[in-house]
Amino acid sequence: VKDHPLRKIMHPRSLAFYGASNNILKMGSILMANLLASDFQGSIYPVHLKEKQVMNLQAYPRAQEIPHPVDVAVLVLPTEVVPEALEDLGQAGIQRAVIISGGFGEIPGGEGGRLQKRLVEVAREHGIRFIGPNCIGIFSHDASLNTTPFGNAPGGKGIAFASQSGAFTCQTYELWRKLGASINQTISVGNEADLDLADCLEYLVEEDNVTSVCLYIESIRRPRQFIRAARRLVEAKPVTAIYVGGTEAGARASLSHTAAISGSEELYDGILRQAGIAKAKDVEELFDITWTLATLPPMKGDRVAVITNSGGPGASMAYQCEKAGLRVPSFSAALQDKLHSLLPPTAYCVNPVDITYALNLLLLRDIAQIIFESGEADAALIYGFFGKEFVSNLAKVFPDAIESFAGVQSDFFLTGVQEIALLPKQLGMPAAVLSFSGPESEPNRIIMRNGMPVFSSARRCARALVALRNRSRAMQ
Amino acid sequence: VKDHPLRKIMHPRSLAFYGASNNILKMGSILMANLLASDFQGSIYPVHLKEKQVMNLQAYPRAQEIPHPVDVAVLVLPTEVVPEALEDLGQAGIQRAVIISGGFGEIPGGEGGRLQKRLVEVAREHGIRFIGPNCIGIFSHDASLNTTPFGNAPGGKGIAFASQSGAFTCQTYELWRKLGASINQTISVGNEADLDLADCLEYLVEEDNVTSVCLYIESIRRPRQFIRAARRLVEAKPVTAIYVGGTEAGARASLSHTAAISGSEELYDGILRQAGIAKAKDVEELFDITWTLATLPPMKGDRVAVITNSGGPGASMAYQCEKAGLRVPSFSAALQDKLHSLLPPTAYCVNPVDITYALNLLLLRDIAQIIFESGEADAALIYGFFGKEFVSNLAKVFPDAIESFAGVQSDFFLTGVQEIALLPKQLGMPAAVLSFSGPESEPNRIIMRNGMPVFSSARRCARALVALRNRSRAMQ
Repeated sequence: VKDHPLRKIMHPRSLAFYGASNNILKMGSILMANLLASDFQGSIYPVHLKEKQVMNLQAYPRAQEIPHPVDVAVLVLPTEVVPEALEDLGQAGIQRAVIISGGFGEIPGGEGGRLQKRLVEVAREHGIRFIGPNCIGIFSHDASLNTTPFGNAPGGKGIAFASQSGAFTCQTYELWRKLGASINQTISVGNEADLDLADCLEYLVEEDNVTSVCLYIESIRRPRQFIRAARRLVEAKPVTAIYVGGTEAGARASLSHTAAISGSEELYDGILRQAGIAKAKDVEELFDITWTLATLPPMKGDRVAVITNSGGPGASMAYQCEKAGLRVPSFSAALQDKLHSLLPPTAYCVNPVDITYALNLLLLRDIAQIIFESGEADAALIYGFFGKEFVSNLAKVFPDAIESFAGVQSDFFLTGVQEIALLPKQLGMPAAVLSFSGPESEPNRIIMRNGMPVFSSARRCARALVALRNRSRAMQ
Repeated sequence: VKDHPLRKIMHPRSLAFYGASNNILKMGSILMANLLASDFQGSIYPVHLKEKQVMNLQAYPRAQEIPHPVDVAVLVLPTEVVPEALEDLGQAGIQRAVIISGGFGEIPGGEGGRLQKRLVEVAREHGIRFIGPNCIGIFSHDASLNTTPFGNAPGGKGIAFASQSGAFTCQTYELWRKLGASINQTISVGNEADLDLADCLEYLVEEDNVTSVCLYIESIRRPRQFIRAARRLVEAKPVTAIYVGGTEAGARASLSHTAAISGSEELYDGILRQAGIAKAKDVEELFDITWTLATLPPMKGDRVAVITNSGGPGASMAYQCEKAGLRVPSFSAALQDKLHSLLPPTAYCVNPVDITYALNLLLLRDIAQIIFESGEADAALIYGFFGKEFVSNLAKVFPDAIESFAGVQSDFFLTGVQEIALLPKQLGMPAAVLSFSGPESEPNRIIMRNGMPVFSSARRCARALVALRNRSRAMQ
């Protein structure tokens, strides 16, 4: 469906922008300023009744007077005037829009609901398809497009996030960054008066730079279409979701948020299961699983190898894997002997493999490679990377000696880390790293840059592998 | 028990240090260099057979020749020579030690086990009490003492962490920092040949700067003493634990790690329940709960007020609270009217309270205060802080206009944040913040600095409140 209405919305070459002025205190101006600050390469045509120029761009009183083709309109107008703006779009032959303005169906009482119905009527009349109203906008890495009030997501080939919450798409970049994940598109669907989550699922099938999809759900408005679209999408790429409408206050909040009628937890569990969508318990797990499924090769069985340089993290990874339903089998005597021959006598080689305190990460690489190639594991979890920060205190006491020491160690560290990070793709076996630090640690940054997930707890590691195993089994 | 053996170990005025030399590549030297780089104010006496000076400090061939009183000895020696060093300590009348050396009972086969028995014999003979062997050392904020190879924990009045894993005490500082937590003491107990977790619990009762205790457990060696000590401690301060020995590979790993014989999950759940210790699912939850119990006032009932400026996070907090067994009741008409009178017409005041997109955080403060004082909630969860980063993109487009705008906003932001952060202690009602960013965001830093926890998912918020509610109920 290359001609899906969302295709042009997410990849426009030109935009008409309603609601920006030269008064920076207005929301429309904030959004357009943000858009100008992003790297959008296409044309932007402000539409303003009075101003001749908006932020140094020529402005037009109506879309009909823009003397160039316009792919998509972005509307950040007061509620009451949105229907007539849509009329203007229709007259100008612009058939795609993102309606950010709120005050529609999500407001109890009637007037907002009436205006939202009017929007839909005008759109139908002119063949206009739109996102919103009451959404926070869209982000499209490939189009260098950001119509939200927030900065750019960490972009690249990778994840698409379709969400009934704008905050979840725009205010969660730090969470993605801490995972080293890359986001290809985010779509805040708002009240879904026209295009909804089911449309997003349909559209994403053909988006080649999207390798994994996640959803934030308060309500599924068209369950049959949603399940049908999800099943098609899930054949091509993994889909993971959270649902928050399944309790009394969750449902009340959803209704006030996007006029969404939610249903019981059991009903939604059933819909997601039928649709082939993995369910996450919260946003952290949603992101963990979505990124793991985007970046790691398939996990062909239940056996996890646990590799560590420290007993507690090793025991924790083994424990959490088994609690989550995976296996951490003892290695064969032959494999144990092979590992022992490289390691100090105090090392433990049964699985977990505890190489004990070793500063040389090339050793860790060798150990990992032997295990990856042994055929005795289907995935690996690894703990034990040190960065240069480890030796920084020593430098205070040994200012002369430490320089060469730190240099040597740092080469060992970083070469070993880099080589370990390449193993999953080179050898076709998934692996993740447990680290209590995040991207502030240089080894973690290297690992993340090479597409290997780093999680801050053994439980998060195990649950991500379970999701990967489930996905791999479903695709076999 | 002010004369508990751990008292002097954790608050020494002088140390004898075995195993450091002028060769920085040795582990003993790394540890002593690290100790010198920390702020320890007491005396340090290196013990070395040949060197006259170690790192510019006068060294002594044996402890018996140190002409000053010594409170505690730290041993980082090869396994075989540790018993004779302990003999030397005994002769010198030094009766407290931290034995970091490994290679004892955790090594299968016999020799290590035999040496560990010998350690205990020598210690008994001379009345020596010790931590270890095979531990990573201790950290004591009040004594400015750090005998580990890693930097200092974020220190202060607050948490004590007693752990059968050294990595969990020393390599998790980033996790604590992301919570804004402060650590008073960490004790890596290693093989527990003498002092064990039960001793730690006994000792911590009288430590006034410890307000919350957490434990990493692979095995409880003396269950009756552990339960008795825990019960006494739990009357004074909260205790939270994780246990990783309850699966087959977890048990195998624990045995190889610290020679710990673990038991079934059910057995340990029973012990922890009898002891009055809260159980966490993983290290992230352990830290969340421990810090929440350290810093927030009691939660006197099950009712949570959810305050947000964004629908999705509000719905998520409400949903996760109810899933976790708390209540998110609708507010009275009177309270709703009061809130409505301050908020724009699009705001939702039932609970969650969605103040909608408001840049003025003094408004959020007023709303929070009204709810705190209403008597209609026992705790609050809050989402919706913006930092200056929000306007940074605008500055690129409006370099002149933005300066004053950002200045004004920034005052609003930070004054409001500061005042909200003070509410829990001022009004005696617990509150936590949901933010998808961490301490890299200035508002979060202000909140954390004032002792209010910030969590990155609604589920983490809810589970921390449940633990607080359980603790408050038990103490009623």
